[in-house]
Amino acid sequence: MSLIEMSVAAAAAAIDAGEINAEELVSAYINQINTLDDSIQAWEHFDAEYALTQAREADALRKRGQQTGPLHGIPIGIKDIFDTHDMPTEDGTVIHKGRTPAEDSAAVELLRKSGGIIMGKTVTTEMAVLHPSRTKNPHNPEYSPGGSSSGSAAAVAANMVPLAIGTQTNGSVIRPASYCGVVGYKPTHGFISRHRVLLQSLHFDHVGVFARDITDAALLAEQLIAYDKRDPSMQVRMPPKLLSTIEEGPLVPPKLVFVKTPAWNTHADNDVKEGFTEVVDFLGDSVEELDLTHLLEEVPHWHKTIMEVDIAKNFNREYKQHKDKLSDNLRELIERGRQTLAIEYNHAVDHIAALNTAMDEIMVEYDAMLTPATTGEAPKGFDTTGDPIFCTPWSFCGMPAITLPLMQGSNNMPLGVQLTSAKGDDARLLRTADWLTKKVNS
Amino acid sequence: MSLIEMSVAAAAAAIDAGEINAEELVSAYINQINTLDDSIQAWEHFDAEYALTQAREADALRKRGQQTGPLHGIPIGIKDIFDTHDMPTEDGTVIHKGRTPAEDSAAVELLRKSGGIIMGKTVTTEMAVLHPSRTKNPHNPEYSPGGSSSGSAAAVAANMVPLAIGTQTNGSVIRPASYCGVVGYKPTHGFISRHRVLLQSLHFDHVGVFARDITDAALLAEQLIAYDKRDPSMQVRMPPKLLSTIEEGPLVPPKLVFVKTPAWNTHADNDVKEGFTEVVDFLGDSVEELDLTHLLEEVPHWHKTIMEVDIAKNFNREYKQHKDKLSDNLRELIERGRQTLAIEYNHAVDHIAALNTAMDEIMVEYDAMLTPATTGEAPKGFDTTGDPIFCTPWSFCGMPAITLPLMQGSNNMPLGVQLTSAKGDDARLLRTADWLTKKVNS
Repeated sequence: MSLIEMSVAAAAAAIDAGEINAEELVSAYINQINTLDDSIQAWEHFDAEYALTQAREADALRKRGQQTGPLHGIPIGIKDIFDTHDMPTEDGTVIHKGRTPAEDSAAVELLRKSGGIIMGKTVTTEMAVLHPSRTKNPHNPEYSPGGSSSGSAAAVAANMVPLAIGTQTNGSVIRPASYCGVVGYKPTHGFISRHRVLLQSLHFDHVGVFARDITDAALLAEQLIAYDKRDPSMQVRMPPKLLSTIEEGPLVPPKLVFVKTPAWNTHADNDVKEGFTEVVDFLGDSVEELDLTHLLEEVPHWHKTIMEVDIAKNFNREYKQHKDKLSDNLRELIERGRQTLAIEYNHAVDHIAALNTAMDEIMVEYDAMLTPATTGEAPKGFDTTGDPIFCTPWSFCGMPAITLPLMQGSNNMPLGVQLTSAKGDDARLLRTADWLTKKVNS
Repeated sequence: MSLIEMSVAAAAAAIDAGEINAEELVSAYINQINTLDDSIQAWEHFDAEYALTQAREADALRKRGQQTGPLHGIPIGIKDIFDTHDMPTEDGTVIHKGRTPAEDSAAVELLRKSGGIIMGKTVTTEMAVLHPSRTKNPHNPEYSPGGSSSGSAAAVAANMVPLAIGTQTNGSVIRPASYCGVVGYKPTHGFISRHRVLLQSLHFDHVGVFARDITDAALLAEQLIAYDKRDPSMQVRMPPKLLSTIEEGPLVPPKLVFVKTPAWNTHADNDVKEGFTEVVDFLGDSVEELDLTHLLEEVPHWHKTIMEVDIAKNFNREYKQHKDKLSDNLRELIERGRQTLAIEYNHAVDHIAALNTAMDEIMVEYDAMLTPATTGEAPKGFDTTGDPIFCTPWSFCGMPAITLPLMQGSNNMPLGVQLTSAKGDDARLLRTADWLTKKVNS
């Protein structure tokens, strides 16, 4: 097995045991980036020499017996909207060109503490909204990688890093992970600090992770889930035991609920419809279908109302001072947000808590909800990063979500299977995701 | 001393000792209501026989050794926007005429548990907003009692009850208490549950108390401060030790900060200016003045922006179905709220946390802030309930506030002295208020 094919846990154990060193591991991934990134364009800031310097420091620490954490020597890609004190953070916009923050974002700080090598900054769409980036899908460069965490998903899919972090306000973790054929996991809203991450919406912004399998995703997420009072959406609570719960496995076979959502009829293509019909058939008694149309049909409208207003406020300076440097898409979105009435906004905000109450009650009966991740395979061409509509309800609620690369579409591009659960039930969600993956692959 | 002149603690102790019974105490207050309420009009719902029934039950319990709490047998007035399962709750509007809720509000539930006699429901302005009620000021019936908790303040001032509860969204506890010459105390935002109280604004609605002295107010507030997950603004925390902190007194002489606020120049009349100049002179080295104009000048605008939007949303049904039954004042307020942009609303909301951070830093240096309660004495006539502008910043922040009946104006009407402190610092605020009262009266 080549170094870049090792799981994160195996690679970290091999470094710990002195079987390999961080410099070798990082060099192998650098080689992959040098080979592939001209065509894929996943990296916004990448300095091979600086990555090697970090790796050598990690090796020196280990030799002195000062290992720092479970990610010691593991390279990680960082979406270019997380502040880094030692690399630019340009947020995918010319307006922030050359921006070099003085401090790390909370997430990057935690990754450094865990021993991770900050490999570089991955390409994002314009200010993590919808205007497509230059990144290509590693499975076929004629296809979109999705967005807004385009570079993070593509970098993991192309084996340029084993791990990467991104963000999701609507579908920006789950969608690119689905299109690129990797695991994307967005923990419960408020589990990972967004301190010094480009702010779109306090209501909906989530930090999420990309990995090649569930265990690696869980290992990365465990390093990031920590209370931070600088993020107003966080509460002090026990962190979920993701890895140990996955390892224990379910005591009894999980019960899933299949929810098509109202987008099934309006947005899902045949690949999705056929793929999910097959999965549901295969699962038999383990799954039952529930129609939640009455709860979910207005969600895209409420989400849009809130997101546009929040983005209009949080990108106010960029709009006021640099309107001409914004894409038409983003400028129009901000202008809609600026015109929205407060009474409509607050009406929509009230639905967040109300819908969570309803979802909590429904999810008491089930271990996880099965639902499409995307409307189909990645779009061909680069006019759009694809439709996030199958992610919208769970981003709206702040429910945890994971996409698993279990299917393929008619163009042989990956197609994710999304699982979600009630807020806070992340450990059981990942245990169920692991069970499902093993069942499908067995 | 007549029964109605006894302090609440003394009356409760006398009942506990069997020296008086609840029926006698309640009868004495009923007599006062029967004598005075034709002219004062403090009560919306008052049934003497039902009050006596509760008193006799309290006495029967005592005889069986089953006393219920520190307010056993004490009559309490309830602003007619707190739901009561055994009396109508009509919110000061014909639209809610005959409304009889099935359950008690959380506050009324707590008062019953403490042994209090629910004496009746006190008059409120229309939906607890600004349109004047029929209540008169007990000090002179040609003057306004203030609003919106008009009846609660007037009932305590006229010795019709020793205690009453009300609410404040802008100045509706402090202002009527100042005008009526009683103690009004509004604990920190989120200290008292607003479950089943007419909702105007989650941001600004506070439950507050009226009493004839600080100790009675503290005793009442201690019965009401209890975590209730049904109020989304509450957090689990240790309740403040109000009574014992007052009793201990300050270890060293308190340090006050005198803040005129921007309303001093624009709104305060000569009574206020002369009275406060005198108080500040009298306090000498115990007080220093601070100009917070830069922090406070926009607060009335932000408060108005948020309050109008929140009222527009929360009174939406009344507006949509009964527009013609709303006062012009309230209808116009709602219509402004309906037209406010979300971006302006959210901009204003952001200032709540920002201003609290600034006030927390300032208040580290002081035991309490000294500031006018009202722009002057109660207005003559009934066109207005007076201006709440000296309460607006502390309602905006959710800081605790108390008004003390320490001054008189040129018409021999009462004039309150307001003290406020940082959020959560209620015990020290009341200790300082007690110290100030004793110093002024010594």
